[in-house]
Amino acid sequence: MNKKISIKNLARETSCEISGNQNLIISGVSAVENALDCEICLARTAEYIEKIPMSKGGAFIVSENPGLEGRTFLIHPNPYAVFAKIVALFYPLEKKNESIAETAATGQNFSHGKGVHVGENAVIGNNVVFRDNVYIYPGTVIGDNVVIGDDTRIYPNVTVYSGTEIGKRCIIHSGSVIGSDGFGFAPDGADWIKINHLGKVVISDDVEIGACNTIDRGTFGNTIIGAGVKTDSQVHIAHNVEIGDSTILVGQSGVAGSTKIGRNCIIAGKAGITGHITVGNNVIIGPMAGITGNLKDGSVVSGVPEMPHKLWLKAQRIIPRLPQLRKKISYLEKKIKDIEGQNEQ
Amino acid sequence: MNKKISIKNLARETSCEISGNQNLIISGVSAVENALDCEICLARTAEYIEKIPMSKGGAFIVSENPGLEGRTFLIHPNPYAVFAKIVALFYPLEKKNESIAETAATGQNFSHGKGVHVGENAVIGNNVVFRDNVYIYPGTVIGDNVVIGDDTRIYPNVTVYSGTEIGKRCIIHSGSVIGSDGFGFAPDGADWIKINHLGKVVISDDVEIGACNTIDRGTFGNTIIGAGVKTDSQVHIAHNVEIGDSTILVGQSGVAGSTKIGRNCIIAGKAGITGHITVGNNVIIGPMAGITGNLKDGSVVSGVPEMPHKLWLKAQRIIPRLPQLRKKISYLEKKIKDIEGQNEQ
Amino acid sequence: MNKKISIKNLARETSCEISGNQNLIISGVSAVENALDCEICLARTAEYIEKIPMSKGGAFIVSENPGLEGRTFLIHPNPYAVFAKIVALFYPLEKKNESIAETAATGQNFSHGKGVHVGENAVIGNNVVFRDNVYIYPGTVIGDNVVIGDDTRIYPNVTVYSGTEIGKRCIIHSGSVIGSDGFGFAPDGADWIKINHLGKVVISDDVEIGACNTIDRGTFGNTIIGAGVKTDSQVHIAHNVEIGDSTILVGQSGVAGSTKIGRNCIIAGKAGITGHITVGNNVIIGPMAGITGNLKDGSVVSGVPEMPHKLWLKAQRIIPRLPQLRKKISYLEKKIKDIEGQNEQ
Repeated sequence: MNKKISIKNLARETSCEISGNQNLIISGVSAVENALDCEICLARTAEYIEKIPMSKGGAFIVSENPGLEGRTFLIHPNPYAVFAKIVALFYPLEKKNESIAETAATGQNFSHGKGVHVGENAVIGNNVVFRDNVYIYPGTVIGDNVVIGDDTRIYPNVTVYSGTEIGKRCIIHSGSVIGSDGFGFAPDGADWIKINHLGKVVISDDVEIGACNTIDRGTFGNTIIGAGVKTDSQVHIAHNVEIGDSTILVGQSGVAGSTKIGRNCIIAGKAGITGHITVGNNVIIGPMAGITGNLKDGSVVSGVPEMPHKLWLKAQRIIPRLPQLRKKISYLEKKIKDIEGQNEQ
Repeated sequence: MNKKISIKNLARETSCEISGNQNLIISGVSAVENALDCEICLARTAEYIEKIPMSKGGAFIVSENPGLEGRTFLIHPNPYAVFAKIVALFYPLEKKNESIAETAATGQNFSHGKGVHVGENAVIGNNVVFRDNVYIYPGTVIGDNVVIGDDTRIYPNVTVYSGTEIGKRCIIHSGSVIGSDGFGFAPDGADWIKINHLGKVVISDDVEIGACNTIDRGTFGNTIIGAGVKTDSQVHIAHNVEIGDSTILVGQSGVAGSTKIGRNCIIAGKAGITGHITVGNNVIIGPMAGITGNLKDGSVVSGVPEMPHKLWLKAQRIIPRLPQLRKKISYLEKKIKDIEGQNEQ
Repeated sequence: MNKKISIKNLARETSCEISGNQNLIISGVSAVENALDCEICLARTAEYIEKIPMSKGGAFIVSENPGLEGRTFLIHPNPYAVFAKIVALFYPLEKKNESIAETAATGQNFSHGKGVHVGENAVIGNNVVFRDNVYIYPGTVIGDNVVIGDDTRIYPNVTVYSGTEIGKRCIIHSGSVIGSDGFGFAPDGADWIKINHLGKVVISDDVEIGACNTIDRGTFGNTIIGAGVKTDSQVHIAHNVEIGDSTILVGQSGVAGSTKIGRNCIIAGKAGITGHITVGNNVIIGPMAGITGNLKDGSVVSGVPEMPHKLWLKAQRIIPRLPQLRKKISYLEKKIKDIEGQNEQ
């Protein structure tokens, strides 16, 4: 927490322009309201920019120079991304020392690069390959024939089933299960016969998996998680699903078997996506939506089953008025009968 | 199971009045239908009080004296709470012996009170503080700088990330993950930049967390769980959420980031609550509801999005009649055309 | 993968008729599109049967002889079940050697049959009974007084609470928690008093539990999972629930306390079933449905709350048209006023 970085270095690392004191030394990140004069703050909306004159903060990350005298700014069209990068400079993820705990169990033919850390009571299967700087936290179990790329960290009590491939710079949070059998059974009269799952899970680079996720292995082919995918807690991804690059899945959402989801999609919290469909690129699926059919690139949908989000907003506003509408229809019916009666007379 | 407690002691411990045999000795709790004469039963509704004459049970916990000759009653306005207390007297939670298993790994500067139990293959990080009678079950991993209060028990295979604070008399069930990173990423073109999470999770006294919960740490500030909060299995609480005292969250419900929930609320099963909103005190949220906006104290809501529960009940009853209503509207349209035609002639 | 099985043996093991080359030797299973001539493929629909002439596959599992010259078929009315059995013949589940890892901790009075395997850093409590060929994977924790039947395998990082009974040939996937306390609290003013849970979980034979499931123990009686039940990932089954034989629960579904579900039901993904109700046999509950009342044998329902599935399909099709219908009603209102005005003139 006693790190000091010059504003010039921060600007260089984040490709920002500096306005104000070019010689400032920053020693941390804080909120506009309670920052110290050695701290830098994010001020990406008018609401926060208005608070700057009252703030003691040393510097502010903004999208445009607000022209406030005597203050220092880092200016960039994407201040939020700059902020994330500066947070990482001051408060990087924990570095683990190179070591394999004595209480960890490692299998046969464990091959690993330099800087690898295996925590207490972790278990590594046979024929496992770790590249450089793989960190396995305590209690995590890695199955046989797993390959893990450089700089990937797996937090405690994760289970990675045999054969899983994990890319570089990935993060997997605690409680998650990667590569358990998919839900595949053949009906045989009243019984169900298990279909043994021969596929695996392949996770690309720069993926972050939240806590208590379940990602099932493929039945024959693989379940594939694209580069830069981020999942929140308690997300379920079934067998043979493919998730495109940089798509995000928010908490408690789920994707059923063999569905393909494109790039840069946002699947909101608790949404469910049925099996064997195709979701295009840049699709946004609303919270608690239930998707039953293919979605084209750029679709924005909500509802169970799904409809265009704007239509859903309108339709949902009418649901609470249904009792009223029903009465109105009965009233109209009666009116028409009256009119018909009069006309007949 | 061979414990014996006099009815007088039971009455004293639970502030009940006794009617009937003051010298009864009770040795267990059972159901009205199959109790033995040494057992006590809960009879809090008319349905159960009607069964008392046929029951062999020794005593009955009731809200009012039902005036049945020759039977013994413990009388209290809240018989259910009395029942819970008497169950705990006969069948207290497991006591663990003071010991740290040889297979457990403990880090540097582990400071702990008396009566502490650490189970087989548990892992305790550096600078951890346990107060008295903390029980850590096998396979649980406690991160660095965690503080746990008196009489708290954490069941097997729980993960508590670094910096978490847990109060007194808490219970955390297996598979739960406390303090994993919140879901915070800054968009940068097609990519997402991780926002490192500097906050923590603070759990107050008398909290019970169900199995496979995920409670994320705060981005900067903390995620706060109030005193007496109880969560069921598979509940997700996102970063920077605050849950007020004695609020309960039922199975598979979820709360998105930075939302504040008041005291004494009931969040029913599978309900979802969006981020950055405020839910008042004494609010009841129905099963599978999707909450999108602030809720005042005492609100009772259901639906996706939410509406008053009573209105929701009425509106939902109309949904299955929509096909009929639609036909009726077409019929009325036709009728009106007919009338207009006649009038024009 | 180098296993070789004659087509005659395959036919005998699966009660199939052979048409074509009776002397074929098969060495694996593949898809119709990319099979080798030593491999067998499933072709259960017309779509796949049409591809057979172009396929290099050695044999095909079909429901009826398609009469294609020069090709070999295994014929059975249920080709999918035959396929599952043949997959299991070529690719059986992993066999573990008989051994108890040195890093595993076993309690007092551990009684076990032959062929038992306990993985690294697993923990077995006191008075536990394992029958023959029980496989416990690394990091799994088995509580006191648990009994596990022949040929059951429990994958890594599972927690089985004390007293649980598990049948023969069961599979439990990683991260699942069996026997945690049910969600039972008695309100006492603003507080909640825990009801200690004295019941247990009883799992019958041939059950498969997916990853990160939570199955709570009974309050007094037991939570009962019938023979042949299969659950997907992240399923929650609350205290005192009973699930009938061969019922399946798909991902992220949940059943609240004391509900009884019959035999051969299908509970689709993310469905929620309220507490204290009875669901009959052969019931199908749609994805994301919310069940609030008893269901008769053979019901097929969807919606929140539930309605007959066919009605739900019709009703849901009208939801996106509600804005239009509302306008139509206003238009009719206006028309009628006009007509009334004309008639009065």
